[in-house]
Amino acid sequence: MKFYDCTTAPSPRRVRIFAAEKGIELDTVQVDLANGEQFGAEFRQINPDCAVPVLELDDGTRLSEVVAICQYLEGQQAEPALFGRTLVERALVTMWNIKIEQQGFLAVQEAFRNAAKGLKQHAITGPRQFSQIPELAERGRERIHLFLEKLDGQLADKPCIAGENFSIADISAMVVVDFVGWIKIGIPEDALHLARWYESVSSRPSATA
Amino acid sequence: MKFYDCTTAPSPRRVRIFAAEKGIELDTVQVDLANGEQFGAEFRQINPDCAVPVLELDDGTRLSEVVAICQYLEGQQAEPALFGRTLVERALVTMWNIKIEQQGFLAVQEAFRNAAKGLKQHAITGPRQFSQIPELAERGRERIHLFLEKLDGQLADKPCIAGENFSIADISAMVVVDFVGWIKIGIPEDALHLARWYESVSSRPSATA
Repeated sequence: MKFYDCTTAPSPRRVRIFAAEKGIELDTVQVDLANGEQFGAEFRQINPDCAVPVLELDDGTRLSEVVAICQYLEGQQAEPALFGRTLVERALVTMWNIKIEQQGFLAVQEAFRNAAKGLKQHAITGPRQFSQIPELAERGRERIHLFLEKLDGQLADKPCIAGENFSIADISAMVVVDFVGWIKIGIPEDALHLARWYESVSSRPSATA
Repeated sequence: MKFYDCTTAPSPRRVRIFAAEKGIELDTVQVDLANGEQFGAEFRQINPDCAVPVLELDDGTRLSEVVAICQYLEGQQAEPALFGRTLVERALVTMWNIKIEQQGFLAVQEAFRNAAKGLKQHAITGPRQFSQIPELAERGRERIHLFLEKLDGQLADKPCIAGENFSIADISAMVVVDFVGWIKIGIPEDALHLARWYESVSSRPSATA
């Protein structure tokens, strides 16, 4: 297996943390996103969507998209289970992970990519250029506040996002909270449950992966 | 189990088709989206995100998000397998389903919700009002063209989106293609692979669900 990564980017970090929790060591290739290596002819062969992470299997199959890669790693090594154990628990992990991606990750992406000076023609990840829409950056910021409030509410009576056990949903949410820092938004002062959870998940050894 | 549905909406239709493929009959409650029932106090208790579909389990657990619900149904009744069989096949189904949601479904939603006269303050699904951004409607339309081209390419040498077997990725893609019709975009004339696939999937009995 070969893992196409970029140390500074939030999406591949989700996979690195997931692998670290399982003790899986990935054979990693760095893709130089800052210098546009993802748009080059060579990397387009690896992922036409011009994005990391990508996991290349020994038979040549290439998996992109964080959840697909993590699901494959979970299938390779079941423990510790990070997609839930019972059927209901697994559905709840999936549900929360989707909410975190759609209401959290996409909102930060909107806010960041539509405002960053270096991304004027890259408001969307991928090969095609799209101009920034300043209103969308503003809307993204508003959505982030709602999202952080939602996470705080969810964590009021649970140690982890999807219930009792640490899961991929916690990894995704932690990476979103750190990504939110890029646009200078922090955990709200009154979000005590979120702060307690963040302290706990970010002190796990995997968080530095 | 109780299924909160709305016959006219694309998202719950994905679950209805999935269930029909498995021969699962859902005990259905219609939510009147056209008249704002999803924003009422009663439905907010069922899903604070004010959206359908929701599957309420007999123990009271409520699952929202299409993929979480379908994953639960797959766990209840494995055949026919709609999330793939082997580990690699399952990862590819997940990967394609995510690409279809992010590059297809979200693009149509952007195009539709940011332009529809009846949704001026509902540019995003959910309880909080967000004004339409006309540039986003236009960008959504551009992204749809890229997406249909991508699907056509993927289907050039495969009968189904994720490979040999019909899966949830085909269901998601078919619903996106029909949703695209809402904003008067059709399958491009030169997208012969996509047209052949669409003819095949839309003639399955489940497509009318």
